[in-house]
Amino acid sequence: MLYESVASDISALIHSGTLGPGARVPSVRRMSRQRRVSISTVLQAYHALENRGLIEARPQSGYYVRAPRRKAAEPATSKPPRSPQLVGVHELVSRVLEGGRQQDIVSFGAAIPSAELVPVAKLQRIVSAVARRQPLSLTTYGLPPGREELRRQIALRARDWGVSLTADEIIITNGCIEAVNLCLRAVAKPGDVIALESPTYFGLLQIIESLGMKALEIPTHPRNGISLEALALAIQREKVKACIIMPNVSNPLGSTMPDAAKKRLVRLLAEHDIPLIEDGVYSALHFSPTPPFAAKAYDKKGMVMLCSSFTKTFAPGLRVGWVAPGRYHAQVQMLKFISSVGVSDLLQLTVAQFLEHGGYDRLMRALRRTYAHRLELVAHAVSRHFPQGTKVTRPSGGYVLWVEMPAGVDSIELYQQALKERIGISPGPMFSASNRYRNCLRINCGIAWSDRAERALARIGELAYESVLESPPPPA
Amino acid sequence: MLYESVASDISALIHSGTLGPGARVPSVRRMSRQRRVSISTVLQAYHALENRGLIEARPQSGYYVRAPRRKAAEPATSKPPRSPQLVGVHELVSRVLEGGRQQDIVSFGAAIPSAELVPVAKLQRIVSAVARRQPLSLTTYGLPPGREELRRQIALRARDWGVSLTADEIIITNGCIEAVNLCLRAVAKPGDVIALESPTYFGLLQIIESLGMKALEIPTHPRNGISLEALALAIQREKVKACIIMPNVSNPLGSTMPDAAKKRLVRLLAEHDIPLIEDGVYSALHFSPTPPFAAKAYDKKGMVMLCSSFTKTFAPGLRVGWVAPGRYHAQVQMLKFISSVGVSDLLQLTVAQFLEHGGYDRLMRALRRTYAHRLELVAHAVSRHFPQGTKVTRPSGGYVLWVEMPAGVDSIELYQQALKERIGISPGPMFSASNRYRNCLRINCGIAWSDRAERALARIGELAYESVLESPPPPA
Repeated sequence: MLYESVASDISALIHSGTLGPGARVPSVRRMSRQRRVSISTVLQAYHALENRGLIEARPQSGYYVRAPRRKAAEPATSKPPRSPQLVGVHELVSRVLEGGRQQDIVSFGAAIPSAELVPVAKLQRIVSAVARRQPLSLTTYGLPPGREELRRQIALRARDWGVSLTADEIIITNGCIEAVNLCLRAVAKPGDVIALESPTYFGLLQIIESLGMKALEIPTHPRNGISLEALALAIQREKVKACIIMPNVSNPLGSTMPDAAKKRLVRLLAEHDIPLIEDGVYSALHFSPTPPFAAKAYDKKGMVMLCSSFTKTFAPGLRVGWVAPGRYHAQVQMLKFISSVGVSDLLQLTVAQFLEHGGYDRLMRALRRTYAHRLELVAHAVSRHFPQGTKVTRPSGGYVLWVEMPAGVDSIELYQQALKERIGISPGPMFSASNRYRNCLRINCGIAWSDRAERALARIGELAYESVLESPPPPA
Repeated sequence: MLYESVASDISALIHSGTLGPGARVPSVRRMSRQRRVSISTVLQAYHALENRGLIEARPQSGYYVRAPRRKAAEPATSKPPRSPQLVGVHELVSRVLEGGRQQDIVSFGAAIPSAELVPVAKLQRIVSAVARRQPLSLTTYGLPPGREELRRQIALRARDWGVSLTADEIIITNGCIEAVNLCLRAVAKPGDVIALESPTYFGLLQIIESLGMKALEIPTHPRNGISLEALALAIQREKVKACIIMPNVSNPLGSTMPDAAKKRLVRLLAEHDIPLIEDGVYSALHFSPTPPFAAKAYDKKGMVMLCSSFTKTFAPGLRVGWVAPGRYHAQVQMLKFISSVGVSDLLQLTVAQFLEHGGYDRLMRALRRTYAHRLELVAHAVSRHFPQGTKVTRPSGGYVLWVEMPAGVDSIELYQQALKERIGISPGPMFSASNRYRNCLRINCGIAWSDRAERALARIGELAYESVLESPPPPA
């Protein structure tokens, strides 16, 4: 519709900062002249922007950019139960994944990088060149540990995180999730207790569930990550067999542990002979100009198993990941062979070539800038459209935002209602083994910002409002 | 060396049948003229061929093609132990795989299709075209069950085996081995008893070992496959939780169950509510002009989980497999997501396009012919060079041969000695959970036949002879 195109122009000016808070929006008459549309079309556009909370009318004066409501506060450290839990998230996760498959949905659900930010033309050229010049990549029965060219590139990049690795210490996997599966199977058995952050990525909970292990959720601060004090206490109380932690750019909180805390974490676990599975899948998307160290950088006993992939950055469609499993190298390599043999050489060589001369560093700088900006836009929109008392995280990197709504809002219901209007979100209980975070949700901010996206967020906010109004007052 | 080229020519004439048993080999003088080499070079070549048992000198008359010794007999039905075993093959398998990595080895070890038989040029074109025309294949976060284009092609092909499937019933995996892993995890838990053929593919034993389950080896006939009588008895004796069977073209025996037996197998297991994991990875390489039915063709209760891949035929480097898990569809799909999320769309679409218009049927006819011929060549060479009493299988398809040597030959020692001379073989105990088949070995016949290959086989035969001579007589 015509008025939407006008609204979208103004909204772009506001979001880019060209029109700051309090700035005067071009007058209705002027806009009508400039855009060659009728006065009533412009008025319709301005009313729409008013409804979305972007501009406000001042009597006798015109329209002005609204000063955003103060940004919502941050959530506090989580308080999960103190005992290990049998996980039961499969069913909810399945339902949410199934829902997310719908065509033409606003994808705030899955944490998927924006397709328009993937260097497609370069990958197309590299894939064709690898197939042409290295035909063996199509006929070779690739076996673990995987192609040396790729393992060498990974070892070089790992230095950014203070990790000294040789190519020999790395095993290529079908994405980071396969790597975590293999590591966990290498060090723990059904019935064992695995400690992790709370909230944490549902995929990790599902791995634990599928292997018949128990999850011990540890209190986690939305900026500084897992609480070492709580972890130390938990280790005294329970026989913890392994930890799976995302020390840099956790999912869903976006927390990054201070380097000193990572060092203490590694020492604490080593003292108790507990292996650490470090999930570093978002590390490369940390927003700071100097990347933070990995926990693996402090690993003296070979007990940190660093897992990562290129799925969240430049190659979402290739599913190439890796693990540096320290002293568990032989077991992990054997399990990789048993579970799925090798990874296609074609994919491995494509990733290796991109890392070597595809402009990886430049791309990463651009991705960090873009995602930081998109997170900011979504956080502002949430502050503007969600009920009073809503809290949002300040992620250190990546592209997901964790939103804590007032108690009483049921995010699973919210998810169902939003889905009917073709809006995807991830309800909070997906991220807990103990069905916590009922009033929370994770928003994927990787997608391109648009009017439709903003309207979708406003709609989620509205649904949350209704839910607050309908819900009974919390017990005194 | 010059004489080897002459020897190789003659050997090719013999193996192609141009010179049949008893035929006169061109005279030394004539060969010297034709090939423009010295008499002594030709003599050297003919002596080499004599040593390899291919030709014989008849006094005053010249050289003749030797009538092959009668082909070695077939092994009998296997007699594995009657109780379930905790598997312990990892260590041996690791060692053998590690050894097989050596450069420039004669690859009788791993069952890997010959690179020169893979339609490389076609795959190169398809990969480039997919990357160019379907750029989303590089950016899409492919989720299970996988691309419909591919699932549709698979459903069409499955009709060849009498199986009616829709695309919806199929899940794409990282090769057949991942499919078997997922199926087994969907229906059994650590400690459970899994029945399988004996001998069987070591990868299946490793899956059982890695999941803490127990293997119950069932007597198996080298032509007709698993003994239904033995299986029925075993089911009465033990709580069998699932079966993993290769009804068509088993590995390592090459057996194919008669279709009527497959039908009885499916009924027997259904009566006892035991799911059947059908490994059909070599089915497409069955030598008969009309392909045999899959066990899945007789599945009325949805309890047969048919697994296969394209790794053994046209795409060894792509690792694309699939499973039709019947009533266990939801569990298998969820486990696929948890274990390694999806399979790269680029690989899936490449395989789909090849199936649709890459000349799959023509290629399969050529592969069957070639592999049948190579198996024949190796079987004859084994009959010629191995100790008296050696038995070899008559595989119904595929490209591996199972060789049973006289008791007293230790195939693990043989493997080690052969490896020193850059010859790979797979020793028998890799194929058993109970360390059986010490005097057996599996020979990969997929590789191109050559003088070097023949010499290598002759050398294994020699080593086996030495081993028989050195070994103490069997206890009376």
